[in-house]
Amino acid sequence: MTWSPPAQEIRTDEAVESLDTDECWRLLADSTFGRLAVSDDDGADIFPINHLVKNRLVYFRSAPGTKIVSLTERPRVAFEADGIENRRRWSVVLRGTARRLGTEAEIEAAGVDELHTFTRSTKWNYFVITPRTLTGVRFTTEPSRGQARS
Amino acid sequence: MTWSPPAQEIRTDEAVESLDTDECWRLLADSTFGRLAVSDDDGADIFPINHLVKNRLVYFRSAPGTKIVSLTERPRVAFEADGIENRRRWSVVLRGTARRLGTEAEIEAAGVDELHTFTRSTKWNYFVITPRTLTGVRFTTEPSRGQARS
Repeated sequence: MTWSPPAQEIRTDEAVESLDTDECWRLLADSTFGRLAVSDDDGADIFPINHLVKNRLVYFRSAPGTKIVSLTERPRVAFEADGIENRRRWSVVLRGTARRLGTEAEIEAAGVDELHTFTRSTKWNYFVITPRTLTGVRFTTEPSRGQARS
Repeated sequence: MTWSPPAQEIRTDEAVESLDTDECWRLLADSTFGRLAVSDDDGADIFPINHLVKNRLVYFRSAPGTKIVSLTERPRVAFEADGIENRRRWSVVLRGTARRLGTEAEIEAAGVDELHTFTRSTKWNYFVITPRTLTGVRFTTEPSRGQARS
């Protein structure tokens, strides 16, 4: 039993356009919201995050919470952002390694205080994802059922 | 070095509303597009997919592609969908086990021919995710930088 991921599959279809690296970075930099995929003992998990792109690195931050995931043990994450431009959806996926920024100097140098966040908590952990692969596609999709009619 | 996921963290914030199970299912059922998180030997990965909800199960399909991931070995996936309602973003995350539908009868019974897809390929593999956990939040977020000004 095998599964062929849509993002790979659809690249062979004429209706789907592969995006080059510059376009992928432009789209990621123009968006502020994405999803972080991680793995833990229960398999894959996914979290909505706000992100920031600087120098072709992806930054995000989070405050201490109830569920602690060690990115030291499993730092190999994936990050996805998507959106709609000209009635076509784009999706960019970056796979890479997440690392916590360890010093105030590093946090300041990264300029991650620009990061939008969901909360007003002041005690943040900052992370950077160093990319290993970056892929993007643009395709025609149906709008969501609920929102299309509102 | 630990990381606290935003989806957990933000639940403690007054600006973030936890969604009950019925609301999570309504939002998933009203949307057609989400992201599937899986894990492979290189860590977590994430794919945009079209999905369909039936009887509190999530269905998706894909055609044979260049990259084959064995969901037999690593069936524990996460699925996320999000959207914006009344200027607030919602995000629903389902963690569960993916299984390929093995027979035509099972595919027909599931009604997954309603699934929207990116391509016109005819040879599909159909999958169902049986949920283990389902969580959802609604929060205020900034619109994406690029799209907010267009």
